[in-house]
Amino acid sequence: MQREIFDDEHDAFRDLCRTFIAKEITPHHERWEDEGQVDRSIWTAAGAAGLLGMGVPEEYGGGGVDDFRYNAVLDEEIVAAGTSGVGYPLHNDVVQPYLLRLCTEEQKQRWLPGFCSGELITAIAMTEPGTGSDLQGIATNAKQDADGDWILNGSKTFITNGILADLVIVVAKTDPDAKHLGFTLFVVERGMAGFERGRRLKKVGMKAQDTAELSFTDVRVPDANRLGEVGQGFVYLMQNLAQERLSIAVASVAGAEAALRTTVEYTKERKAFGRPVANFQNTRFELAEMDTEVSIARVFVDRCLREHVTSELSVPDAAKAKWWCSDLQNRVVDRCVQLHGGYGYMLEYPIARAFVDSRVQAIYGGTNEIMKEIVGRSLIG
Amino acid sequence: MQREIFDDEHDAFRDLCRTFIAKEITPHHERWEDEGQVDRSIWTAAGAAGLLGMGVPEEYGGGGVDDFRYNAVLDEEIVAAGTSGVGYPLHNDVVQPYLLRLCTEEQKQRWLPGFCSGELITAIAMTEPGTGSDLQGIATNAKQDADGDWILNGSKTFITNGILADLVIVVAKTDPDAKHLGFTLFVVERGMAGFERGRRLKKVGMKAQDTAELSFTDVRVPDANRLGEVGQGFVYLMQNLAQERLSIAVASVAGAEAALRTTVEYTKERKAFGRPVANFQNTRFELAEMDTEVSIARVFVDRCLREHVTSELSVPDAAKAKWWCSDLQNRVVDRCVQLHGGYGYMLEYPIARAFVDSRVQAIYGGTNEIMKEIVGRSLIG
Amino acid sequence: MQREIFDDEHDAFRDLCRTFIAKEITPHHERWEDEGQVDRSIWTAAGAAGLLGMGVPEEYGGGGVDDFRYNAVLDEEIVAAGTSGVGYPLHNDVVQPYLLRLCTEEQKQRWLPGFCSGELITAIAMTEPGTGSDLQGIATNAKQDADGDWILNGSKTFITNGILADLVIVVAKTDPDAKHLGFTLFVVERGMAGFERGRRLKKVGMKAQDTAELSFTDVRVPDANRLGEVGQGFVYLMQNLAQERLSIAVASVAGAEAALRTTVEYTKERKAFGRPVANFQNTRFELAEMDTEVSIARVFVDRCLREHVTSELSVPDAAKAKWWCSDLQNRVVDRCVQLHGGYGYMLEYPIARAFVDSRVQAIYGGTNEIMKEIVGRSLIG
Amino acid sequence: MQREIFDDEHDAFRDLCRTFIAKEITPHHERWEDEGQVDRSIWTAAGAAGLLGMGVPEEYGGGGVDDFRYNAVLDEEIVAAGTSGVGYPLHNDVVQPYLLRLCTEEQKQRWLPGFCSGELITAIAMTEPGTGSDLQGIATNAKQDADGDWILNGSKTFITNGILADLVIVVAKTDPDAKHLGFTLFVVERGMAGFERGRRLKKVGMKAQDTAELSFTDVRVPDANRLGEVGQGFVYLMQNLAQERLSIAVASVAGAEAALRTTVEYTKERKAFGRPVANFQNTRFELAEMDTEVSIARVFVDRCLREHVTSELSVPDAAKAKWWCSDLQNRVVDRCVQLHGGYGYMLEYPIARAFVDSRVQAIYGGTNEIMKEIVGRSLIG
Repeated sequence: MQREIFDDEHDAFRDLCRTFIAKEITPHHERWEDEGQVDRSIWTAAGAAGLLGMGVPEEYGGGGVDDFRYNAVLDEEIVAAGTSGVGYPLHNDVVQPYLLRLCTEEQKQRWLPGFCSGELITAIAMTEPGTGSDLQGIATNAKQDADGDWILNGSKTFITNGILADLVIVVAKTDPDAKHLGFTLFVVERGMAGFERGRRLKKVGMKAQDTAELSFTDVRVPDANRLGEVGQGFVYLMQNLAQERLSIAVASVAGAEAALRTTVEYTKERKAFGRPVANFQNTRFELAEMDTEVSIARVFVDRCLREHVTSELSVPDAAKAKWWCSDLQNRVVDRCVQLHGGYGYMLEYPIARAFVDSRVQAIYGGTNEIMKEIVGRSLIG
Repeated sequence: MQREIFDDEHDAFRDLCRTFIAKEITPHHERWEDEGQVDRSIWTAAGAAGLLGMGVPEEYGGGGVDDFRYNAVLDEEIVAAGTSGVGYPLHNDVVQPYLLRLCTEEQKQRWLPGFCSGELITAIAMTEPGTGSDLQGIATNAKQDADGDWILNGSKTFITNGILADLVIVVAKTDPDAKHLGFTLFVVERGMAGFERGRRLKKVGMKAQDTAELSFTDVRVPDANRLGEVGQGFVYLMQNLAQERLSIAVASVAGAEAALRTTVEYTKERKAFGRPVANFQNTRFELAEMDTEVSIARVFVDRCLREHVTSELSVPDAAKAKWWCSDLQNRVVDRCVQLHGGYGYMLEYPIARAFVDSRVQAIYGGTNEIMKEIVGRSLIG
Repeated sequence: MQREIFDDEHDAFRDLCRTFIAKEITPHHERWEDEGQVDRSIWTAAGAAGLLGMGVPEEYGGGGVDDFRYNAVLDEEIVAAGTSGVGYPLHNDVVQPYLLRLCTEEQKQRWLPGFCSGELITAIAMTEPGTGSDLQGIATNAKQDADGDWILNGSKTFITNGILADLVIVVAKTDPDAKHLGFTLFVVERGMAGFERGRRLKKVGMKAQDTAELSFTDVRVPDANRLGEVGQGFVYLMQNLAQERLSIAVASVAGAEAALRTTVEYTKERKAFGRPVANFQNTRFELAEMDTEVSIARVFVDRCLREHVTSELSVPDAAKAKWWCSDLQNRVVDRCVQLHGGYGYMLEYPIARAFVDSRVQAIYGGTNEIMKEIVGRSLIG
Repeated sequence: MQREIFDDEHDAFRDLCRTFIAKEITPHHERWEDEGQVDRSIWTAAGAAGLLGMGVPEEYGGGGVDDFRYNAVLDEEIVAAGTSGVGYPLHNDVVQPYLLRLCTEEQKQRWLPGFCSGELITAIAMTEPGTGSDLQGIATNAKQDADGDWILNGSKTFITNGILADLVIVVAKTDPDAKHLGFTLFVVERGMAGFERGRRLKKVGMKAQDTAELSFTDVRVPDANRLGEVGQGFVYLMQNLAQERLSIAVASVAGAEAALRTTVEYTKERKAFGRPVANFQNTRFELAEMDTEVSIARVFVDRCLREHVTSELSVPDAAKAKWWCSDLQNRVVDRCVQLHGGYGYMLEYPIARAFVDSRVQAIYGGTNEIMKEIVGRSLIG
């Protein structure tokens, strides 16, 4: 089935992404995996190529077109190439909307040009050692002192781009009695006193993407770095989570498609017992089942994308897309590993790297269990 | 998510279907289940209401609009009402295209008015005791004698509308050496000498829908009852199977939706351990998982419907829709039965009837294994 | 793998069961399915053959050997023969222990001879329209009047042998304030005033086994019909549930074995595309997966049986056997239906009857969800 | 359920294994993972502790007790400790039987003392780049020259202990026309001219266990290094595969048990939304389902172990144990990862390492697809 949601400009952007990744990222990715993070230069290269801040107005250095399909194209090409280390999706899909919607004009001028050029790498710090998907359990707190500065204390974990980030949006409790209206967002910048990066965490996969613990000890954050209204932090998170989840779903489907594509080729070429593996009925059924589910997911996610572009995507629908597609990706990758036999366990094969990279999709962005809670509650009212 | 493929006229037709079913079918369905077949009068009532032959040109008494979405609407309403006994889908979705595409003008005038009025109930006889989805194994044969008549011999089984049918399209081998180009279609009419109905088969479900064995012993079929070209029977089957499969997929999704809807209501009302069953996390997750998959299937099948209307639906895509949606329907119904506890096993509950009715969807119209073969072969070329 | 838990006497008893079923039950079973219940004479025939009350002491007319393996043998043979209508398992496995453990000497003399001869058919009435597996929600109640009789009011549903039963053990609330220590068991006998049978419920399967609603309106039950101590009813239920669940697990494995056996034979004989269905790799894998799981279940259930005979079987282990084996049976039967193609939907085939009969195994005896609760709680303490 | 197959001596050996692993292996394992292989010294330490060659007669330095349960105990403790790098199972379970059964007296004296002391690390080289589980496709070949030496050519891959091994049993084709009777086994020793180790392969997990490609270029192997009869190599492989598969099944169940144990603890301690994760019904059901299947697998594998000790284990039963338990291990580990949330993706957590280590169990020792072929063929005769 033909995809229907893209026009020629999206296709051209896809070519641009593909060329950029092939030329600038793929040749270095294995080294970055060994080093546990990418080179900073790949961020400025991406900025120069127009791959950062596509939705930021041109006056701040962005692409000037607020159309999430461009984000989706980039996300798809990254996962299809297996270059999971470049944290652009977090930057573009997750962080950008906070900055665009919440920054004052002054903040926009301060941060958006660097955001778009790749000189300011961003992260967002929600999760804490004691809280997973339960955002209301956040303990990091900020208290405003007499001169208006906020004194930030706490620690965060599992922060993507944690080591490289220059700007970190931190969710902190500012009113311990106000429940979900007691959180506020702050932009913590590289070099602020008391802001420390912890260890780079060793992960199952996504090894070129730095993930870190961050700690904040009496970090003095000027009120000018407050993002949005005091007490509205949780509300802002809720508003942006649907896009983050859709972003994961988009990557999941693209990842599943890539895994299946490479496996179809592999089984057609690889022989066992004197004939191509693809000629065994079990292989054919495995491929058919995967292709069916991937096709179905593709149609659904494209529909979600279309609805998101027109701001019609509901929270439960985003949750559906997130959990089902990420589970599908893992299911597909796992079956493809099996069809590769021993090679499926060797990291030099893309399917093996996909296996270790994919698993986290079902966990971050709200675990799939949280997604099911969201959907379930929407049903029973 | 809103469905997007229907306009006001389809919605009006849906109201018509729903009203007709509620008034004319539902009150009698349990009796028909006991009797193993519906009353003939329900066919003429449907004809009078405009529910038969919607795509047949008006000059032959039909609706005059060749738009499969009307068929889909009727299919959906039948399954949603749990009135599986009325064999309109077979008549409209499966048989009608053969008649429309293959009849000569004389045949159209002979058969289509009755087809549309419900006076001529139809069936199609492909399957034989020794062949399931393997159509090339058909042994029923016809030989043309000197005066041009065909002498038909053989037996068929699992024929929906087998007892009630007035016109049966029979697939027969006419050239034993010609492989897939050796089959021809014939219209066998009620009362032809040598055409016998066998037993009405006792089935797991769909008890009001008559299913029978048919036997043909030296049945003399005039050449005027030959449908289409000699030797092209298999080709015609292939051309029409995609629509049959889409029809099953459409019914499957509607069936799954209905099962889920009734179960959401049931679990909200039913209490266990002092609170509604829907309030248990396991129930919520079950409902969420089902709702997700049903939503995804809905979007996919609607996309297939749209492509079918413009003649773009590929054979592998129809196969994907058929196997995945029928499996889904069974999976959903089975889980819904479980959420009903003991009531799920009692036939007075719609979910119990859905359980016995649904199982065949994965078998007829080409077993789901055949569907996977079709998809698998399309992948490996 | 050879089974290890039976000795020659069990094997001889198995031959007896098999012969009895083949001669006395199988020839009539289809008729009983149409009639919705078995003939009473099949109970006295079973009594005469020694198939009832094998564990009842000889002085009361029983087999005199308290060894649950004999029960298991009979259960297995019934399900293997597809003769689900005969309610001996309920009588022997579920009711017998209550009578043996709780009856006074007077009660034993009154009831056990008829229990063993088949003249007194039994049932147990726990479930109510408003309570499923949640036994603490039971609303049927009994109040003792001045002369010591109990006045019983309430209604029960899903009662196996409900129509035929002469003796019904009824669980009733006797102290509304005492929570789980507020229930008492009573034996209600055929003919007591105010004891009415409701409808025979129409079920998905198990059609020859009568299942009914029972109602009790001011039924005067003499204290001599009280079973065990006042207030201990719930405790007794708990003590006997493990055996009931093991009984279901035993039947489930035997049912799965029978389904698989018949399907192996079917696929070896049935041809498609010119060769036996069993020769397709997909069939082979399906059979292999089922055979593996059935073998594993067999070893586990035999281990449970052995532990039960020595009173070592834990409640969580019985719960594990119940849910996993009944799910397995349904999974196996469903896959076997599919391998039968259209014939799998025709009730004249044993696999089709197995399909409708098996589904309830996952529901009664405590739903499989309740089983998971039991296992889960045992893990987390 | 208590395990029943071990006596006090096995329990004492388990204590020994556990102590050894805790003291000698665990403290170094992370370093070995970084280095891609273990220290040689851990082999001689194991030999000194009596963990190598338990079944080798005492006269050659072994434990003198041919009882596979000791192997099983060691295998279980290794996987429970997550110390997948030590290749003792391959040495003891896979290689040892070849040496014990096939060595001449001279060979036994030459090799067994080193085998037991850990000075001679072993490997077995079956798989080739062009053949996976299809052993008959082996292309490595050996030709005997005039003076009786064999000239060995070919390459092997996925060889466990490939880098460290001093003795490698190589399967080679010695008669190209003899089909399955054309293979012979040879012991290739470290230092033989033309025997080269290729790269150490980077794997998804099992990172401390060296896995390598081996190449043989005109390696001159004296006839004194031939193992067993000429032409019987394939037969020997078949005789030993059941034990290899049982070894994998044993490790799989122990791995699943360990994963579950650690996850039960984790979910009891970890809080979300104000209460322990274990208190959520979904968690409880997840744990219950896993515990049930692990219990069932445990009983089955112990039964297989008992049968193997008395040489009664059939090839299909070993295949069943292998595929089902390795699939179970992966299923359990995957679900446990999910219950750990983000921590499940961090390699410092045992469950994350289990995730990457376990995947290969379904692939090596004959893929699970091959196992299903074995079982399937045994059913349809």
